[in-house]
Amino acid sequence: MRVYDLIWKKRQGQALTADEIRYLIDGYVRGDIPDYQMSAWCMAVFFQGMNFEEATALTLAMVESGDTVDLSSIPGIKVDKHSTGGVGDKTSLVVLPLVAACGVPVAKMSGRGLGHTGGTLDKLESIPGFSVTLSREQFLKQAAEIGIVLAGQTANLVPADKKLYALRDLTATIESIPLIAGSIVSKKLASGADAVVLDVKYGDGAFMKNIEDARRLAETMVEIGNRAGRRFRALLTSMEQPLGYAVGNSLEVVEAVETLKGNGPSDLTEISLKLAGLMVAMAGLADDPETGETMVRQALSNGNALTKFTQWVAAQGGNPKIVRDYSLFAQARVVRPVTAEDEGWVERIDCRELGLIAMGLGAGRNRLEDRIHPEVGVRFFPKIGTYLKPGDVVAEIHARSEADAAIAKKRLKTCIHLAAQPVRPEPLIKEMI
Amino acid sequence: MRVYDLIWKKRQGQALTADEIRYLIDGYVRGDIPDYQMSAWCMAVFFQGMNFEEATALTLAMVESGDTVDLSSIPGIKVDKHSTGGVGDKTSLVVLPLVAACGVPVAKMSGRGLGHTGGTLDKLESIPGFSVTLSREQFLKQAAEIGIVLAGQTANLVPADKKLYALRDLTATIESIPLIAGSIVSKKLASGADAVVLDVKYGDGAFMKNIEDARRLAETMVEIGNRAGRRFRALLTSMEQPLGYAVGNSLEVVEAVETLKGNGPSDLTEISLKLAGLMVAMAGLADDPETGETMVRQALSNGNALTKFTQWVAAQGGNPKIVRDYSLFAQARVVRPVTAEDEGWVERIDCRELGLIAMGLGAGRNRLEDRIHPEVGVRFFPKIGTYLKPGDVVAEIHARSEADAAIAKKRLKTCIHLAAQPVRPEPLIKEMI
Repeated sequence: MRVYDLIWKKRQGQALTADEIRYLIDGYVRGDIPDYQMSAWCMAVFFQGMNFEEATALTLAMVESGDTVDLSSIPGIKVDKHSTGGVGDKTSLVVLPLVAACGVPVAKMSGRGLGHTGGTLDKLESIPGFSVTLSREQFLKQAAEIGIVLAGQTANLVPADKKLYALRDLTATIESIPLIAGSIVSKKLASGADAVVLDVKYGDGAFMKNIEDARRLAETMVEIGNRAGRRFRALLTSMEQPLGYAVGNSLEVVEAVETLKGNGPSDLTEISLKLAGLMVAMAGLADDPETGETMVRQALSNGNALTKFTQWVAAQGGNPKIVRDYSLFAQARVVRPVTAEDEGWVERIDCRELGLIAMGLGAGRNRLEDRIHPEVGVRFFPKIGTYLKPGDVVAEIHARSEADAAIAKKRLKTCIHLAAQPVRPEPLIKEMI
Repeated sequence: MRVYDLIWKKRQGQALTADEIRYLIDGYVRGDIPDYQMSAWCMAVFFQGMNFEEATALTLAMVESGDTVDLSSIPGIKVDKHSTGGVGDKTSLVVLPLVAACGVPVAKMSGRGLGHTGGTLDKLESIPGFSVTLSREQFLKQAAEIGIVLAGQTANLVPADKKLYALRDLTATIESIPLIAGSIVSKKLASGADAVVLDVKYGDGAFMKNIEDARRLAETMVEIGNRAGRRFRALLTSMEQPLGYAVGNSLEVVEAVETLKGNGPSDLTEISLKLAGLMVAMAGLADDPETGETMVRQALSNGNALTKFTQWVAAQGGNPKIVRDYSLFAQARVVRPVTAEDEGWVERIDCRELGLIAMGLGAGRNRLEDRIHPEVGVRFFPKIGTYLKPGDVVAEIHARSEADAAIAKKRLKTCIHLAAQPVRPEPLIKEMI
């Protein structure tokens, strides 16, 4: 087998065999195949795509490049959740306690985020004392004892993805559906869950800008997961506006706690119940997603989900009192409101720009070495369809300095686009796959 | 400027500016831009192409990466010739003496060939004593004294092309029209000629398999050359069958000498006169290609071209007696005829396979380090449209051993495809651009 021929074959639009794909991935991880051949191959994949057989072979070869987590000692069907990411997406913080409260074992590994805000790990770390560094024994023990645990990924989980992603990031080959799918699904498979619910977001604030690409990505991931012998389902959800109001790490944890208390924003509550209901059904604890949703709705209203969340925080060293006293979180030095200047119905929101504003305040990372400031961010209130008049508070900026707040305020004012007529918002949850 | 953005821009089908392209080429030659980004960019160019502005900017940036040859001390309009290469293509050996005999100054640099047979350099070196290693002073002196000289390229001619070509060769990005055009034209521009005639071949035995690609390549090269301020013209010529009969280095020199004596194969004679006539016209020594062709036809018939060739051989240390006595060339140890087994009209010839057979005998190189055996090769006689009957000699194999000859014979028999009805061949020279 020659690497040249495999690049050529893909360039010509032909499908590679599973053996050929394994040869590429193994050789690349071992260092036998140089970066310059791999990047050319990735660019060929960008243009020519991959069929499901190829995408599955890629994913499995990546899984085999490193360690895998064995969750079989935990009884029951372990269901994981993955979101492709969006502005203000704190659903995991709500969904995991919801399903754990219904008896679904949650033993999840999570990566650190790059982008406008941190990942779930970073958000949890904004809770004073919370640790995501657990030994294998601690991880399994906590799962057995309280039914919910979340830790950082082990170092050698899918090293092929680490190496390949870093290369793609430098060679403009990130935006390829099969390569994205392989990257995500390989980590889910290696993390050991039996079933996975994917929240695939589309729109201005998401990685996928349109629903067609999001659907292709969702279908590809579900297909790969199922071919790999696990149960995968996906929701296509809109990211035309932030999910909930809060964008920023501790601000989002507070909003998640409020949601677990039943006082959350309706969009965040709706999507969390839908995802959690699906997970309960996939865990075999409900006959269908609707029944599952009824169960998690009850766990929300009877306080069991909030109790589970509090147990979880305490188990991982966090201060459980944050659930009652939000002043225990680090507080931003400067908090400034932003008011509307014009009158009309919100027609469009520059969701990605809102994420970048939060990142500019220090809520996210440009590079993995960057430090996140957990206390900063934006609370952004209007939703598409909201009627605004001059003076209405549209946002609250949490910043480290007046200068930062001023920049954020100026940028924020450009993010809201008003119409003279009422606007009807799109549904948040578009499809289930 | 970030390399990532330039890869992304090309990937999205946008045109790069001249500054952006120079940034890429300069950075790559300096070693600031890594291979893995350059190969991804080349693959993006493979899929998205380049417009004429971009291709010209690429070519000029490559020219500027190294030394350029100054031919201004030689009086007159210097006209160079380039062929994209084909099986049995020895036209330079005929054309250069033809135009020199008409007073066109020939001061040409040539590269070594990779592929089924050697390049013009290798063919000339099959003449006992012939040297292609000349100092700058020797080169210019010989051009001034006898009006014809050919030498190997100086080491630092278009280093960007050397580095980029080596990368493309490993990453399946050779077959891109603008990258091929940039590679060829940059070397022609750096070699200092005022005008260039391009022989762009298409068909089974050529790099371009179909006339559309060949036409695009020819148009791109002519456009780049003209935008760079030189005169460029191109002929599109068929490579459905070997040019002449001989494929192999000294065999081809002998055939070229026979052609200069007026006894050459009609296809080789025709194309040589056409190219040479065009060159004479571009040199300003004839009003049009037709008049130029009349002049070179006369130089052929009155023996001036053969005299010029003999002078040339002697000037570069070769034994001029080879013109009269072909036994002075190295002789193959084994010479074996191949005869036809079936009856019919030749409809199709596997021209590329014939080239590979010659290469298998030792006439060409797989890698630049490989040694060429000048005496081996194939003389292949039938042309498309020829009527064959069993027992007709179709080829003569010149090999280093009986075993080599046997392998070649077996492969050769599969190269001729017969029809039951007469076949009319396509014209050899298709278009002038």
